[in-house]
Amino acid sequence: MKILAVNAGSSTLKWKLFEMPQKTVIARGQVERIGLSGAKETTIFGSQKIDEEFECANHLQAVERLLSLLTESKIVTDLNEIKGIGHRFVNGGTVFARSTVINDAVLQEMEKLKILAPLHNPANIMAIKAFRAELPQALSVAVFDTGFHQTMPRENLLYGIPYEYYQKYHVQKFGAHGISYRFILKELLRLSHAEKSKTNAILLHLGSGASVCAVKEGFSLDTSMGFSPVSGIMMQTRSGDVDPSLLLYLEDQLGISTTEILKILNEKSGILGVSGISPDMREVFAQRHENPRAQLAISLFVNRIVKYIGAYAAELGRVDALAFAGGIGENIPVIRKLICEQLEILGIKIAATLNDETKASTALISTADSKVEVWVIPTNEELMIAEDVYKLAEKE
Amino acid sequence: MKILAVNAGSSTLKWKLFEMPQKTVIARGQVERIGLSGAKETTIFGSQKIDEEFECANHLQAVERLLSLLTESKIVTDLNEIKGIGHRFVNGGTVFARSTVINDAVLQEMEKLKILAPLHNPANIMAIKAFRAELPQALSVAVFDTGFHQTMPRENLLYGIPYEYYQKYHVQKFGAHGISYRFILKELLRLSHAEKSKTNAILLHLGSGASVCAVKEGFSLDTSMGFSPVSGIMMQTRSGDVDPSLLLYLEDQLGISTTEILKILNEKSGILGVSGISPDMREVFAQRHENPRAQLAISLFVNRIVKYIGAYAAELGRVDALAFAGGIGENIPVIRKLICEQLEILGIKIAATLNDETKASTALISTADSKVEVWVIPTNEELMIAEDVYKLAEKE
Repeated sequence: MKILAVNAGSSTLKWKLFEMPQKTVIARGQVERIGLSGAKETTIFGSQKIDEEFECANHLQAVERLLSLLTESKIVTDLNEIKGIGHRFVNGGTVFARSTVINDAVLQEMEKLKILAPLHNPANIMAIKAFRAELPQALSVAVFDTGFHQTMPRENLLYGIPYEYYQKYHVQKFGAHGISYRFILKELLRLSHAEKSKTNAILLHLGSGASVCAVKEGFSLDTSMGFSPVSGIMMQTRSGDVDPSLLLYLEDQLGISTTEILKILNEKSGILGVSGISPDMREVFAQRHENPRAQLAISLFVNRIVKYIGAYAAELGRVDALAFAGGIGENIPVIRKLICEQLEILGIKIAATLNDETKASTALISTADSKVEVWVIPTNEELMIAEDVYKLAEKE
Repeated sequence: MKILAVNAGSSTLKWKLFEMPQKTVIARGQVERIGLSGAKETTIFGSQKIDEEFECANHLQAVERLLSLLTESKIVTDLNEIKGIGHRFVNGGTVFARSTVINDAVLQEMEKLKILAPLHNPANIMAIKAFRAELPQALSVAVFDTGFHQTMPRENLLYGIPYEYYQKYHVQKFGAHGISYRFILKELLRLSHAEKSKTNAILLHLGSGASVCAVKEGFSLDTSMGFSPVSGIMMQTRSGDVDPSLLLYLEDQLGISTTEILKILNEKSGILGVSGISPDMREVFAQRHENPRAQLAISLFVNRIVKYIGAYAAELGRVDALAFAGGIGENIPVIRKLICEQLEILGIKIAATLNDETKASTALISTADSKVEVWVIPTNEELMIAEDVYKLAEKE
């Protein structure tokens, strides 16, 4: 059964076509600059890579082009081979905890959630509508990035603000990277032969967006991203936690609006803002000896993660495993080393050589006498989406 | 030597008159509703208590009334007996790390810091000017609530925002309760016979404002309040940490300004906002069985503290002692119990009876086999101020 996993942004559409249940990737690709001039499509299958520029006014045109390319390139003989399409949906609010087959009523509910993720949800909805129009026979499924965190207890999901803002306006911690965390946790349990209901773990998704998740007895207890993806640990371009008074102060100092300040906190802050070099940790790391601000950005990045791990360890009471994932977590051993070195109090020890040698591969990097297993687990959100769709398709 | 410790707010003036170096409190009192109608003065000395209402347009008039009362009531025979006046100054920016004798040049520097603490610093300055005018012969000293935190390393004091905001606009973590932390630490070292340079501790100032401080080898390593006092743990009426996106979202939902939202986060949030009952933890605690929101406020309050302790334990690597202070920390044993129960991972154990019996008194409440000593240490910011003034007066 062929299943397409789709991740739509405001001007992008990333996709992966799987053969399920074998989990084989048949093809993958992305469309960039949707709605801008000179959209670019990249498609990779077998040993081939197709790059093309075309005019693409909206997500519907992107989907049309992608689907014709699938048949033109003979990736599929007939589009009806695609039995299901899974959409990463960023914020499912408190409505959607599990992956859900999309029908008109569900779509209507999803439309109402736009306000909670004004940058992401509308793009997700456009992509869903486009695929439903073009491939009406395929099962359409929404997979929610917030779903995994619906098990958080109220003391973790509520803010210390007037309670009516939670009741009336849904102001609460939603978290993110839930699809990734579900994948990492599943892999962790498989690899360490652990029982879900007996496993306490701290999972680190360190990609361009980054967060930490405390898993208690197999369920999300807490996570560092909050009402929006700007809070928590420091990221490539996002600030992570800041004092809210900063906003008013910087508005006055810079003479700009709250909206503009939040844009700066989302797009010009984090590793980029502190280092002044790049949002890419590898580029910043390369300059650490000659540029003190590169070193500062690394220190801040590590510091925030160490603090969240400490906080979550206290909440969990016992930590069985720590797992690194995401671009930085999987590929930059020295960052893992800097983090783990500061976790002595938890009895964490990693094997230097093992850590150094682990890049983009799955490995246990802790020593035998470490009190906590430390894993590197390359995440695979698209596969998680495809698996959800496959399971729902089997039931239909 | 008689020394006056003064703590001025925008409409209040609290004071304590000490005989030093004996540390005896000769008299204490406060003026409330300065600049509002019906100001109220309370003065307590020996077994007497004087309450009076009077019209008080500004801090100068409050100081004039206070000083005449000191002689009228024969608390002092001659105002010249008062050799020094110490002022709690909330935010000394990066300029003032230590208590400082105030002259015209210093006052000028302090005026520049108004923008960093627009609610507190101007009131402090008004009180300083009033006392300098009325008691020009007395040594005038500023004691900074931020001073203790000037030792924080840059990875803790910087936010993950564009670096130029730190350089140009002094956007950084300043922290607070530094006078209290200095007192608690001094007491802790005395009580546990510990060497300052070898002591790692986590100090909790849980008053109406509340924060946590990580002390590494005798110096502040990190603290939960940030650029302003609104961030960190949840407080009586302050929210503590929130996602900055909340501000914009609530501005839109409520149709109010950033300034108004920050006012809500400072004055209507925290224990008051979550419980809907009162900012007073005792009143909220009393309703915990019949009102689920009372229980919720307690859970959030404890949860945030546990997380900060966990975070700071990781940063410190080793924790020798934990100390509770401030109204809640000193007087509500059950809150201490709820916090310590969740710190099993740090090997913290408290003796139930000892904890229950300790109210507003100094005590070691941990068991002999606890890995961390847990202390209750009633704080005394006024005495700390008087001691600083006394030392500086001795040098003059």
